[in-house]
Amino acid sequence: MIIRKLAVIGVGLIGGSLARALRAAGQVGDIVGCGRGRENLEKAVELGVIDSYTHEIGEAVAGADMVFLAVPLGAMRDAFTAMKGHLAEDAVITDGGSVKGSVIADCEAVFGKALPGFVAGHPIAGTEKNGVEASFAELYQNRRVILTPVSETDERAIERVEAMWRYCGAEINRMAPEDHDRVLAATSHLPHMLAFALVDMLSRVDYEEDIFKYAAGGFRDFTRIASSNPIMWRDICVANKDAVASLVDSYADEMTLLAKAIREDDIDTLTQMFTNAKKHRDAFIDGI
Amino acid sequence: MIIRKLAVIGVGLIGGSLARALRAAGQVGDIVGCGRGRENLEKAVELGVIDSYTHEIGEAVAGADMVFLAVPLGAMRDAFTAMKGHLAEDAVITDGGSVKGSVIADCEAVFGKALPGFVAGHPIAGTEKNGVEASFAELYQNRRVILTPVSETDERAIERVEAMWRYCGAEINRMAPEDHDRVLAATSHLPHMLAFALVDMLSRVDYEEDIFKYAAGGFRDFTRIASSNPIMWRDICVANKDAVASLVDSYADEMTLLAKAIREDDIDTLTQMFTNAKKHRDAFIDGI
Repeated sequence: MIIRKLAVIGVGLIGGSLARALRAAGQVGDIVGCGRGRENLEKAVELGVIDSYTHEIGEAVAGADMVFLAVPLGAMRDAFTAMKGHLAEDAVITDGGSVKGSVIADCEAVFGKALPGFVAGHPIAGTEKNGVEASFAELYQNRRVILTPVSETDERAIERVEAMWRYCGAEINRMAPEDHDRVLAATSHLPHMLAFALVDMLSRVDYEEDIFKYAAGGFRDFTRIASSNPIMWRDICVANKDAVASLVDSYADEMTLLAKAIREDDIDTLTQMFTNAKKHRDAFIDGI
Repeated sequence: MIIRKLAVIGVGLIGGSLARALRAAGQVGDIVGCGRGRENLEKAVELGVIDSYTHEIGEAVAGADMVFLAVPLGAMRDAFTAMKGHLAEDAVITDGGSVKGSVIADCEAVFGKALPGFVAGHPIAGTEKNGVEASFAELYQNRRVILTPVSETDERAIERVEAMWRYCGAEINRMAPEDHDRVLAATSHLPHMLAFALVDMLSRVDYEEDIFKYAAGGFRDFTRIASSNPIMWRDICVANKDAVASLVDSYADEMTLLAKAIREDDIDTLTQMFTNAKKHRDAFIDGI
């Protein structure tokens, strides 16, 4: 058993699935959940996802040798503040945030320096559903988890977090925080922005009703991620501001060039852009 | 049997599926296919999709009381030219092009005026696959077909085309050509442009390899349509130039505003945009 006591701060899809996976693997003793909503936490106990719960982070982390932070990015700093002074000597802390630079900065701001026991991480997994009832033990099977330790991070802490994710069936990669944030801005944050912006824009045209009436499968797939949690995505934008804004700007430039090519019947530019995109998209799918 | 002889110009996914559906419904006598590739046409005969084939459009339409044009938008004008002088007295012509204004203009340019027997149409159905081997009789079941007749179109011709599509299981709507082109620009053409542009842009960044390595399910769904046929989409851009370029321009403006909101931590704008998008996307899905 690699974890004596696991504190899960935020018992939703991400936190709940980690708890379920570790329990299923027989790798955790006691699991305490922490959150604001009593109903969700009682449901989590009822489902056997956690053994007990508290609304106090300080209480949850007391005696825990592993703390998993699965709160929205905008709540990370307060969570670090609440656990300060209550952590066990051997506590390892990790998180599931979609942006890593901001979480590392939040931790340093609260503790005054990088915490050797904090290993920032990001499991690339999820569904559009929320809450502990959506959680399941297999969520992380064959999914990637990116860990972004800094030079001050304790190597044994990293290894403990790696072992934890390995027992959940995940494949682990290490990356510099800024590389993670740049890559995720491109693969995840930007596509979400594009989908939100498309649906928002189309909701304002005067033929909106016809648009939704005649939309086909492509539109459904393309806009699926616009049904994601708006507050979570707002927080991600703010937390990964530079990388996301710079990609959105580049994309605006690409759009301006594209509009020009269409207006001027610039067949060569259009053919080249679409052919290049298809080539790379097909290669991506072949590589999965 | 509502069709004595059907001429299918372009025997691929769209044309082949129409032929299969009408044959399955027992509503067609003879089916002649027409195209450039001998191999595809022989395959079509072998599969029982068509009864015979020719490479000459004039020959294919001779004696046909229904002609279905399923060629790329860029080939429509030449197809009309090739059939001129060979059409039967009672011939009804319809097509499957994704843009309607341009096809109607092509027909008028060739015949010198609107052809009463030509009923422009667009079945909103398809897959990413091409060729007669990808065709199947159920493609149009419960899908929408938009017909865009003009004032000169013969009402009996419209009714024959409607009956044909009804036998394929489709739901038929009539619309003005310019309304069709504006709505489809928003629901289909713009999303394709966005996906092509995204993959094209990301193919040029220096961390491209990591992007494709760490891309998750959202990226896969979002970029699926970037695997579509580049030439077909180039033709659509050109054919629906004004509507598409104007939406791409609006989208560039939306991107510029979004980048500004992210840079300035404008929480209110971000929250409002994402919340509005989610509301409309969820309503769209509930309405399906």
